[in-house]
Amino acid sequence: MTVKQIIKFIDTRDTAFIASVDEDGFPYIKAMLAPRERDGVVFYFTTNTSSLRVKQFLKNPKASVYFYRRGRLHYTGVMLKGTMKVLTDKHTKERIWRDGDTMFYKEGVTDPDYCVLQFVATGGRCYEDLETDNFSFEE
Amino acid sequence: MTVKQIIKFIDTRDTAFIASVDEDGFPYIKAMLAPRERDGVVFYFTTNTSSLRVKQFLKNPKASVYFYRRGRLHYTGVMLKGTMKVLTDKHTKERIWRDGDTMFYKEGVTDPDYCVLQFVATGGRCYEDLETDNFSFEE
Repeated sequence: MTVKQIIKFIDTRDTAFIASVDEDGFPYIKAMLAPRERDGVVFYFTTNTSSLRVKQFLKNPKASVYFYRRGRLHYTGVMLKGTMKVLTDKHTKERIWRDGDTMFYKEGVTDPDYCVLQFVATGGRCYEDLETDNFSFEE
Repeated sequence: MTVKQIIKFIDTRDTAFIASVDEDGFPYIKAMLAPRERDGVVFYFTTNTSSLRVKQFLKNPKASVYFYRRGRLHYTGVMLKGTMKVLTDKHTKERIWRDGDTMFYKEGVTDPDYCVLQFVATGGRCYEDLETDNFSFEE
């Protein structure tokens, strides 16, 4: 897969799997809704400020985000490696906010429990059927 | 969810997401076929001895395994935390081997590129819709 194909594949996915590392060095996985916004290889997700994920990323920004498709015969997986920032500034929160988010954040866009995760990918690995390739977004 | 319900949920999944930690402390995720065998909270997967995953687990056995179901309205996720062992002994390889595995391991059950991952869960977290709970399998 070329980088263009990888990005195209990611854009079609409706679930992202996010990994963090806990204080004892154990990896954690959680399914999330697809990124709200993508700017090149920078991805934006919404989450609860009070979540374990946010606590872990504030201490250790090392992260990966995984996307996959499993058909009857074919399997495609793309793992992006990078760092995760927790953004709580008004400007970002307003930009990422969508109608209906009050279902999750009762106080609206200024709800202190609403924050944005910004993931910056540096590269990753893709798996297609039995083939594995590394790729890099760095120069 | 009770521990019984958690195990029951896991047993119905056909995909497992496995996380490891690389040499630089970054978490990695990969989709795998569901465990071949489960003995209480010990799970057995098959994989390629030459894979990056195996290299990572030999250096650092800290792992998690994640199972999820995303329906139209409801989302359930179970993350197990524990340690991963790479087993290459004849007895285990024979026990876990299934007809058709020669598709992946041409030399059959003694193929040096075929090995078994043994995951021992100590506890985890489950997510059901917007609820999160920790659980432990330890006394």
